[in-house]
Amino acid sequence: MSADRPVVVSVPEESYAAGLASVEGVQPVVWDLSAPHPRGAEVRLAVPPYMGTSPRREILEELPSLEVVQLLTAGYESVLDAIPERVSLCNGAGIHDASTAELALALVLASCRDLPHHVRAQDRGEWAGPRIWGALADRRVLVVGYGQIGRAIVQRLLPFEVEVTVVASRARAGDDLVDAVHGIDELPELAAACDVLVLIVPLSAATSRLVDAGLLARLPDGALVVNVARGGVVDTDALVAECASGRLRAALDVTDPEPLPRDHPLWTTPGVLVTPHVGGATTAMAPRALALLRRQVEALRDGRPLDHVVKPATR
Amino acid sequence: MSADRPVVVSVPEESYAAGLASVEGVQPVVWDLSAPHPRGAEVRLAVPPYMGTSPRREILEELPSLEVVQLLTAGYESVLDAIPERVSLCNGAGIHDASTAELALALVLASCRDLPHHVRAQDRGEWAGPRIWGALADRRVLVVGYGQIGRAIVQRLLPFEVEVTVVASRARAGDDLVDAVHGIDELPELAAACDVLVLIVPLSAATSRLVDAGLLARLPDGALVVNVARGGVVDTDALVAECASGRLRAALDVTDPEPLPRDHPLWTTPGVLVTPHVGGATTAMAPRALALLRRQVEALRDGRPLDHVVKPATR
Repeated sequence: MSADRPVVVSVPEESYAAGLASVEGVQPVVWDLSAPHPRGAEVRLAVPPYMGTSPRREILEELPSLEVVQLLTAGYESVLDAIPERVSLCNGAGIHDASTAELALALVLASCRDLPHHVRAQDRGEWAGPRIWGALADRRVLVVGYGQIGRAIVQRLLPFEVEVTVVASRARAGDDLVDAVHGIDELPELAAACDVLVLIVPLSAATSRLVDAGLLARLPDGALVVNVARGGVVDTDALVAECASGRLRAALDVTDPEPLPRDHPLWTTPGVLVTPHVGGATTAMAPRALALLRRQVEALRDGRPLDHVVKPATR
Repeated sequence: MSADRPVVVSVPEESYAAGLASVEGVQPVVWDLSAPHPRGAEVRLAVPPYMGTSPRREILEELPSLEVVQLLTAGYESVLDAIPERVSLCNGAGIHDASTAELALALVLASCRDLPHHVRAQDRGEWAGPRIWGALADRRVLVVGYGQIGRAIVQRLLPFEVEVTVVASRARAGDDLVDAVHGIDELPELAAACDVLVLIVPLSAATSRLVDAGLLARLPDGALVVNVARGGVVDTDALVAECASGRLRAALDVTDPEPLPRDHPLWTTPGVLVTPHVGGATTAMAPRALALLRRQVEALRDGRPLDHVVKPATR
C-alpha cells in the first residue's frame, strides 16, 4: 500500500466511523462483516460487532487487503477459527477495565451496605428502625487475579480504608498499589483471613472451579464472594449451599450456567445478588474502544506494530 | 483532681469500656445516663448513647465532677439545652466520615449501574438480554459540601475516572485532591454541567432547600441527585416532579420528611433509590468512635485541650 492511499478500516457502527474520521490518512467504512461489502477489497483492519455472532471465515478470506481483525472484547477464543492464517488478531484489552472494575466496587458496596435489602424495603414502603448496619471499611479484601482489571479494582478499593491483599498466578514483588503479589498456592491460607473475596482471573484449566467447596469452607463466617471473572471459576452448587445456610454471601455478575435459567436456585438464595453479566457493556466502553481503535489504525498507517496481538499473522 | 486518681468516664456500652480499659489512668464505667449511677459523682467525661433519647439536664446537673459531654454524633443542636453551663460539649466529628462517604459511593454506583433494576429482575428470575448499561466512568460529579466527609467522598470518587468539581460555602484554593474549591454562588452555573450531584452540606438557613425547583431545572437530562446530607437540603416535591417525569434520578439516604411515611410518593417514583438514613450507623463507627474517645480521655487526663468542642464550658 502506498503511503498516499488512505488506510481503509471497517467498523461496526457509525459512531466509531465518526470517531475515526479525524484520523489523518484513515478512511473508516461501516460494515458488520455479515455479508460482502463493496469496499471489502480495500479493508486492511476489520472490527467485528461487539455483541452478536462471530465473524465468518468465508467472509474474511475474501478480503485481499485484510491484515488485522481488531476485537472489542478481551476474550478471543471463540473467534480464532474464523481468522485466516495471513491475518493477525488483536483483542480489546483495556476497553472494559474501568467498567468491570467499577461494577466490582458496585457489587462489593451494594452487598456490604445491604442495598438489595433496602430496595426491597422501599418496594414495601418500609423505613427501617435504627440499627447498626454492615460496612466495607476495615474489611480485609482479597483480590484474586492481578492483571489490568485486578489493578483497576485495587485502585478503586484503596481509599475505602480496607486492607487489600492480591493473588496472581505467581508470587512477585509489589508495585505502587500493593506491598506484594501473592502466588495462587497461598490462596487457601489467605482465604481464611479475608472478609471479601473478589474474583477477576481468566477462566482456564488452572482456574476452573478454583473456588470450590474446600476453598469456600476456609472463608470466615459472613464473608462475601464477588465474581466479575467467569462463572466457571466458582463451583455454583457449593456456593449455593454456603449461602443457603447463611454462612456466606455472594455478588455475581457471571454465573455457571449463564444465562441463569429462571428456576435456578441462585436467584432466590438468601444473601446472593445477581447481575446479568453487565460488567463491560456500559457507556464507559465506547470512548475507550475508540481510543484503542485510533491507536491501532495510526500504528497500522505508520507501519508500527499493533498492541494486544493475541494471534500473529503467519504468511 | 489529683493526677494520681483515675479519670472516671462514663460510656454507654460495655464495648467502649473494654476498649478504654487499657488507657492508663482512666477508669470507664458503663452508664447510659438515664438514671443516677452510684459512681456518677466521680464522672468527669460522659458519653451519651448513640441512638435513643438525649441526656437529661437534671441528671447532668447532679454530677459535681462532670467537665465534658462527648457525643458520638456530628449533630449536637438537640443536646445543647441539656448541657450545664460549667460543662463543655464535644461532638463526634470524624466518627462517621468513612461510613457516610462509603454510602455516598454505594448510592452513586448502585444508581449508575442500575442495581435496583437488577435486584427486581433477580426477584423475577429474569436474566436481561445484551444491551449497553450506564456507568459512572467519564461522568462529571459535583460534590456540594467540602468538609471532612466531602473530602472523604472525593478521595473515593477520584479513581473512578470521573471529573470531580467541589463547592463549599466560600471559594478557596484547591488541595491535594482538587484544583479549586468553588463558592456556593457558582452552584447554579456548575449544576448545569454535572451528571451526578452529591450533597453533603450541613443543614442551615443557607442550605435549607438549596436544591429547589430552579436548581433542579438547571441539571442536565438524566442527571442523578445523591443526598447524604439532610433531607431539608432538597425540595422534595420538586425532586419528585423531576424524577416522575423521567428527567432526573435520585438516591437519597435522607429525606424530608423523615422517616418517610409509608404512602409517600418518593418510595414509588421511578429512578429513585431510598435508604433509611443508614449513612453513619455501621460497623465502621465503633472503632472510629473508640479512637476518638481514647484521644479525648487522654487529653482530659493530661490536662490538654480536647478536640471538637462545639460549646465551651462557662464557669
